[in-house]
Amino acid sequence: MSYQERYDYFRRAAEEALRAALPGDVPEPLRSAMQYSLLAGGKRLRPVLLLAAYNLLCEDITPALPFAAALEMVHTYSLIHDDLPAMDNDDLRRGKPTCHKVYGEGMAVLAGDGLLSLAFETMAASQHPRAFAAMKELALRCGTRGMVAGQCADLTAEEKGGSEELLHYIHLHKTADLLTAPIVMGLTLAGADEGLLAAGRAYGRHMGVAFQIIDDILDVVGSEAVLGKHIGKDAEENKCTWVSVYGMEKARQDAAKYTQAAEDSLSAMGEKANFLKTLARQALVRVQ
Amino acid sequence: MSYQERYDYFRRAAEEALRAALPGDVPEPLRSAMQYSLLAGGKRLRPVLLLAAYNLLCEDITPALPFAAALEMVHTYSLIHDDLPAMDNDDLRRGKPTCHKVYGEGMAVLAGDGLLSLAFETMAASQHPRAFAAMKELALRCGTRGMVAGQCADLTAEEKGGSEELLHYIHLHKTADLLTAPIVMGLTLAGADEGLLAAGRAYGRHMGVAFQIIDDILDVVGSEAVLGKHIGKDAEENKCTWVSVYGMEKARQDAAKYTQAAEDSLSAMGEKANFLKTLARQALVRVQ
Repeated sequence: MSYQERYDYFRRAAEEALRAALPGDVPEPLRSAMQYSLLAGGKRLRPVLLLAAYNLLCEDITPALPFAAALEMVHTYSLIHDDLPAMDNDDLRRGKPTCHKVYGEGMAVLAGDGLLSLAFETMAASQHPRAFAAMKELALRCGTRGMVAGQCADLTAEEKGGSEELLHYIHLHKTADLLTAPIVMGLTLAGADEGLLAAGRAYGRHMGVAFQIIDDILDVVGSEAVLGKHIGKDAEENKCTWVSVYGMEKARQDAAKYTQAAEDSLSAMGEKANFLKTLARQALVRVQ
Repeated sequence: MSYQERYDYFRRAAEEALRAALPGDVPEPLRSAMQYSLLAGGKRLRPVLLLAAYNLLCEDITPALPFAAALEMVHTYSLIHDDLPAMDNDDLRRGKPTCHKVYGEGMAVLAGDGLLSLAFETMAASQHPRAFAAMKELALRCGTRGMVAGQCADLTAEEKGGSEELLHYIHLHKTADLLTAPIVMGLTLAGADEGLLAAGRAYGRHMGVAFQIIDDILDVVGSEAVLGKHIGKDAEENKCTWVSVYGMEKARQDAAKYTQAAEDSLSAMGEKANFLKTLARQALVRVQ
């Protein structure tokens, strides 16, 4: 399989798992609001990362699918809440009106809450012998020292002023934590040893920081039509980004540097890791 | 120990566990916002229920404390989000300004998200051999077929018109699910058999419905000073309550009926269950 075929294979498997994981007996309009945001498309990057990491050690990815679905639920919940007027106040996401624009703010809060709960419900129902360890990893990475901590830092960066320390904190937690979780969860579920887990953690951290730098760059030079969201918002809102702190030139250099570091983290694994290396490299191509 | 001494013993143990479970390295103002709502007092009913259920079978309640803390985190997160302007729009809770009044709406959304994540993180860190089963129970009861489903039904009841069916759905899920979860989790952690679990489930369901009926009654006849929140809001907002659907007379009768059913659920357990029976009865006293 080519890189793209492999990506599409993982993505399609994750989307089927997502459809299967959304219960039929959720009351309306909650179910529609969750489904609207969950099935709005997107790259399914986090599920793909989890399945690729799992696939490094296990041929059959079926047992990992509930965890892939759970990751996308957590990612989607964070987008729904992040788009709220009280947070980033976005009305466009993945080329469509945001959840609160369609279903109202109250229902958008509940849809996010519901998706976070459903993520844990889905993992707990999986019967995978290593489910507990994977849930623990996700709870840590998405929580008050992980993604939610990064969101807090991002939301308050304007008042605090954009220091380098704060910038690194935001990129590590707002973004890299939920890109490291899939790798660690996939490897954990597959029974990886500590050496491989450490390599996976390093890959996730570097790749995650690179992704957020790339996102910062695209918010300045990207196309709304391609990205499916408004651009130029970071500058408008005085956000603490790699571009605002270091300038565009160094942002491009650092995106390349972190991408290289991500690839290097997997060097001991040889050709098996080609998919994950290419994945990191493909993101960088968008800003070169 | 008297009933009240026993209640205070469980409550104090839960409050210590809550303090211990709030990590020091959460960024500000997220940590303060979470702490503000989490340590604002309250009856700690859900932790007390869990510890009492656990204590039916196990003398030392220490291993159950992380789960008691997790329940209060989930309850507190639901209050913070429920109080938001887009939801119930309350500015007073437990006699103090609500979280979003003090920390802003964005931070209140994040504080709720953080507490829900921290609940799962706390349980996952507990090392209890039955932690997984307890997490599964909580995920189900707080999620899209549990508490969040009840919140959705409550939020949309006005448009849908207050049918009996909808009323029962709201009371079962908005309230009873998160009062049943502590009983089932406590019993599960203590290694209860299916017979005892079934009795616990029945107790939680009946007691939970009774509690919400009592809450509905107090919103009409209660005192703001005693309750620490605004009253009369249900009628103002045309909420679907036991009083609005059945009238005050039947609401009082049904509160007593469900309380009796809760007590009867535990009849096979004899004197050991006296604390839980009294707890249900004590709530009823407030509206008699």
